[in-house]
Amino acid sequence: MLDIKITRTTCPKEKPQDESKLGFGKKFTDHMFVMDYTEGEGWHDARIVPYAPFQLDPATVVFHYAQEIFEGMKAYRTADDTIQLFRPECNAKRMQDSADRLCIPRIPVEDYIQAVEALVDVDRDWVPHSDGASLYIRPFVFANDVGLGVHASKHYIFCIICAPSGAYYAEGINPVRIYVEDEYIRAAPGLTGFTKCGGNYAASIKAGELAEEQGYAQVLWLDGVEKKYVEEVGSMNIMFKIDGKVYTAATVGTVLPGVTRRSCIELLKDWGYEVVEGKLAIADIMQAARDGKLEEVFGTGTAAVVSPVKELVWKGEHAYIGDGNIGPVTQKLYDTMTGMQWGKIPDTKGWIVPVEKKY
Amino acid sequence: MLDIKITRTTCPKEKPQDESKLGFGKKFTDHMFVMDYTEGEGWHDARIVPYAPFQLDPATVVFHYAQEIFEGMKAYRTADDTIQLFRPECNAKRMQDSADRLCIPRIPVEDYIQAVEALVDVDRDWVPHSDGASLYIRPFVFANDVGLGVHASKHYIFCIICAPSGAYYAEGINPVRIYVEDEYIRAAPGLTGFTKCGGNYAASIKAGELAEEQGYAQVLWLDGVEKKYVEEVGSMNIMFKIDGKVYTAATVGTVLPGVTRRSCIELLKDWGYEVVEGKLAIADIMQAARDGKLEEVFGTGTAAVVSPVKELVWKGEHAYIGDGNIGPVTQKLYDTMTGMQWGKIPDTKGWIVPVEKKY
Repeated sequence: MLDIKITRTTCPKEKPQDESKLGFGKKFTDHMFVMDYTEGEGWHDARIVPYAPFQLDPATVVFHYAQEIFEGMKAYRTADDTIQLFRPECNAKRMQDSADRLCIPRIPVEDYIQAVEALVDVDRDWVPHSDGASLYIRPFVFANDVGLGVHASKHYIFCIICAPSGAYYAEGINPVRIYVEDEYIRAAPGLTGFTKCGGNYAASIKAGELAEEQGYAQVLWLDGVEKKYVEEVGSMNIMFKIDGKVYTAATVGTVLPGVTRRSCIELLKDWGYEVVEGKLAIADIMQAARDGKLEEVFGTGTAAVVSPVKELVWKGEHAYIGDGNIGPVTQKLYDTMTGMQWGKIPDTKGWIVPVEKKY
Repeated sequence: MLDIKITRTTCPKEKPQDESKLGFGKKFTDHMFVMDYTEGEGWHDARIVPYAPFQLDPATVVFHYAQEIFEGMKAYRTADDTIQLFRPECNAKRMQDSADRLCIPRIPVEDYIQAVEALVDVDRDWVPHSDGASLYIRPFVFANDVGLGVHASKHYIFCIICAPSGAYYAEGINPVRIYVEDEYIRAAPGLTGFTKCGGNYAASIKAGELAEEQGYAQVLWLDGVEKKYVEEVGSMNIMFKIDGKVYTAATVGTVLPGVTRRSCIELLKDWGYEVVEGKLAIADIMQAARDGKLEEVFGTGTAAVVSPVKELVWKGEHAYIGDGNIGPVTQKLYDTMTGMQWGKIPDTKGWIVPVEKKY
């Protein structure tokens, strides 16, 4: 149990008036959670303080060797003004896996959850009220040794910041076009694909920008060895409904084990669908499209929850999915997930964690 | 031509008294170079200011998505107190290649060199005097947009810091033991192996720490696809002299194009050696060792210049190189490179750039 020292801001910021203009991750709340790590001492000095810049020596490890990991979560406001989280223990555990790979000391799962809950509690007035809007929560850890040797740092900062963020689909769910990336890759076995480390995202920017210039919303990454098998899309996992079954890449080291991904798989299985987690060749997906069997395609992730795909392009060939509108299974997943998250339907899975008023 | 505004420190730090205890990249000089980038405006406000921390919002891109690149160079003091650089244009050009891959705006080669020269000039008293010690120069660029969207940033900081650093071989050249890494990889085609981006180093820490725990100085990375071909070692390139010829990995996207590497290749060719840049299987290297034909192995890099290897271990098999001492070609390369760098022998290649006194 962390002893979190709380220092409240004396000059609270103005809260956003127009929640329809929030966007994603642009405005931040009044406070942040911070905790330090020192080798030999462990994690210490857990505190909630006014949101403020870090002062960092230019030789701090994070600027040079990117020893940094993060998580992404949301807090949701229900109709009765309960503030709630979705499966926070999944994010806490995943951050431990990221930490292990990047040689960063683990944060205990219960401490991680306590820290998130405390900060969301202190800033609970910042959780948006409008439909589909939520408080995006960004826990992150970075190395703050000062020095240029390439080694695991002996000092780290764990910080959590929160950004009230608008509905992902401000103008209704809009199926997207996806570019199957054939040159750049996101991960390969033995690298860091299963983690949320900064380097994965830095390496992904170029392909994303090139796809966007061509009018595609996201990139679909193929495996890094053979460039044959689908892995994930942009910063989401991706699922394909082909001839009644749902296929998605197994999370075997190169694919991020998404919390929305596993939740959707559980729901799909509950509903009687067969879900195949394994290797799925892009060539087979394109063939399914030609055969009229590619019924639905959708991404899953914290930001969009479920994001329908209407078109794939691979090596110049276009595959069009369904009639271009969101498919019935995609819609049902979206409604069920968001229904539970915003408290509109009962949480039959035990996934929802309300944030109690303590502070 | 940059218009560099210079603000000198009013409280200079004490210079290190005992240069034998400098170590690497731990103490920094009185000043740093800083330049900002703003989309639409380009690079602007080039300045040399007292060495000081950055103040950065916790939502700054570099903490989350590691959009960051760096270079490594040295300034050397000669017997007549000339301060000189080694092929700075190679580092400037390589930083542009790193920038392109990471979607960071390029810094013009001449501006990069001017900035390095100006800072080294201002802090020239910090260049160590003792044999083998030098001023390590660390130019780096990081994204400093504030916001959590995964996109190329619209704002960057280019900073150069300098660290007086001790002789790499304080106690004489000591050949090292190398662990051939068989699980983790450093790069794969389509990723960022040819760049000096933070993410490459973050991903490499774990294998390095595991090897060190087992008594090895460095990891030898194999290719990311087949794990058959040697690529580089730790943070150096590596060369193998087998039966009279010198082999090293081609720099084809996954291998860092080292400045020391290309300089050594040029020297070797001048001296009449055949140098093969291509795919070299670790199995063939181990066979050459069994056949008594693995004559010399050495790493090349800015820090160590040339680092002899006395032992490789791959899948439990040990290959011992020569009699465990530095080989004649390795020694000749080391003597020639360091001779030119410290001005002890004539620069017959046009590689040396003296830093004029201007400031």
